[in-house]
Amino acid sequence: MRLVTLKSAAPDGRLAVLSADHRRALPVDDLYPTLQAALDEWNVALSRLGKRAALLSGGRCEAAVPFEAGAAAAPLPRSYQWLDGSAFQSHGDLMAKVFHIDNPQSDRPLMYQGMSHQFLSGTDDVELPSEADGIDFEGEFGVITDEVPMGVGVAAAAAHIKLLVQINDWSLRTLAPIEMKTGFGWIQAKPACSVAPIAVTPEELGGGWANERVALPLNVWWNGARFGAANGAAMRFSFAELIAHAARSRRLCAGTVIGSGTVSNDNFRDIGSSCIAERRAIELLDEGAPRTQYMRFGDTVRMEASGADGKAPFGVIEQRVVAPRLAAVR
Amino acid sequence: MRLVTLKSAAPDGRLAVLSADHRRALPVDDLYPTLQAALDEWNVALSRLGKRAALLSGGRCEAAVPFEAGAAAAPLPRSYQWLDGSAFQSHGDLMAKVFHIDNPQSDRPLMYQGMSHQFLSGTDDVELPSEADGIDFEGEFGVITDEVPMGVGVAAAAAHIKLLVQINDWSLRTLAPIEMKTGFGWIQAKPACSVAPIAVTPEELGGGWANERVALPLNVWWNGARFGAANGAAMRFSFAELIAHAARSRRLCAGTVIGSGTVSNDNFRDIGSSCIAERRAIELLDEGAPRTQYMRFGDTVRMEASGADGKAPFGVIEQRVVAPRLAAVR
Repeated sequence: MRLVTLKSAAPDGRLAVLSADHRRALPVDDLYPTLQAALDEWNVALSRLGKRAALLSGGRCEAAVPFEAGAAAAPLPRSYQWLDGSAFQSHGDLMAKVFHIDNPQSDRPLMYQGMSHQFLSGTDDVELPSEADGIDFEGEFGVITDEVPMGVGVAAAAAHIKLLVQINDWSLRTLAPIEMKTGFGWIQAKPACSVAPIAVTPEELGGGWANERVALPLNVWWNGARFGAANGAAMRFSFAELIAHAARSRRLCAGTVIGSGTVSNDNFRDIGSSCIAERRAIELLDEGAPRTQYMRFGDTVRMEASGADGKAPFGVIEQRVVAPRLAAVR
Repeated sequence: MRLVTLKSAAPDGRLAVLSADHRRALPVDDLYPTLQAALDEWNVALSRLGKRAALLSGGRCEAAVPFEAGAAAAPLPRSYQWLDGSAFQSHGDLMAKVFHIDNPQSDRPLMYQGMSHQFLSGTDDVELPSEADGIDFEGEFGVITDEVPMGVGVAAAAAHIKLLVQINDWSLRTLAPIEMKTGFGWIQAKPACSVAPIAVTPEELGGGWANERVALPLNVWWNGARFGAANGAAMRFSFAELIAHAARSRRLCAGTVIGSGTVSNDNFRDIGSSCIAERRAIELLDEGAPRTQYMRFGDTVRMEASGADGKAPFGVIEQRVVAPRLAAVR
């Protein structure tokens, strides 16, 4: 099943199921006004929404509307919890080099709590305060859970993965190392993330969902130029392991979003990267100094996973970074 | 004005205004079902709720119900954002010593993003996974904001402080330094916080709200023994400065909770502490080794700020830590 959240006047938008060809959306807000409401009783919701999806695929469904990406908000326009891992070893190694930090990678997953009160759509302009902050994208995969009990084990955690998503975890690189040095994690360096329009149930990916990892390439373009195509299969820790890590001393609420961290593969010189900082780290290794600069206002990034059928299961993130439209209130 | 959230079947409880003597609560869910709903349009809500508060103080208000602390949830049982500062210099200095870390205190406020999908009441038992984790309390003050624009300055930030609260930021000290060393901040070391029942508007504190700080002693007892009475006036950075720091690259949603960090004063040897880790740091300094152990299951902590009138403006946190009631699902 494929779910989208249509933009509306309501802060959480309007839930709809999407056809297999991504062309028609059937609003289901008579069942569940929002994706959060469906996640709150997912086992019931899955069956109820599945019937609507079957209706839509049957073709005789007058309530369906044409779907285009600009009509979609993030699947969860806001959530009570966003926990982002850093589960790709090659990314961790490279970032440690470029930021001159000890590589903290160990037998424990790396994870931070990020801002969750606003997830941007995959098409709206992204307002950020300053080019001087080192604006960077980070292509990731993510999962959305139902409620997870405190202390859940890895095996049981896997069953709490209900939906898969594709994320751009915007990062401000000039601020990141300053905040990391405090040990407190990031506030200023991690503004709102963007999320591709379509949340899919795991079985929708077929072999693209394996070992609790999204085993698909994440294709990235920066200003139209191909930047990377790393595969999500290389996660050192699976999403089930990330969930168990997160739930060590807390229950997780339904609608918790868990991120993979920047998708990265060992053969980064061939396959490219999913963020600029990683390319800079490679340049540092290969040429002695980073050469690629971070994003400028007006730059675009496009991110699109490709499934076995050549289609983009999560739809596309394609958006522009821009200066703030309103002057800050001092 | 004093607001409480009465426990109910709904996840966000039921909003009520509280009488000055803390004995009667008037449910106002016909106006705003939840505190979040009121914060979403606070400027209107303040006036509407104020009229109900006047009705209640007039005494002729049949809809009022007797209030007792056990009926109260946290003022916001869940929120989209919890950002906790560490704004007391003496606390930062002591923690750096006991955890053998470089003191990261600088000209920038310290702040981490914490879990916000669950705030515990001030009276319910607190289930934590293991005594071996180093269970500690942290007495804090906090503010709740309405929506804050990205890039807000300190002067403008002050006007976004709508309510004041008192918080116990539960901490697991064995896990804390492991997570700090990654630079990613805390997940496992910071389970759900507890919040005292009463959220108050700043003017309710009179001189107890000064320079965007809660200038009141926070009295702490552990298993009935007095533990500390540090004053919130000593914050190195004000709540307005913390808000401006947080909003550097993000708007803050209405209902954002910002914490002061553990209340701590320079004369800690006389006045005591608001967390066990700080006492252990003092013992390390004075006696060469920490002597006080962390909490055991069954232990209680009581926290109660005292106003100029000798009353507790936020009500009381008094609760027990206990083992998990259900075995973890592996």
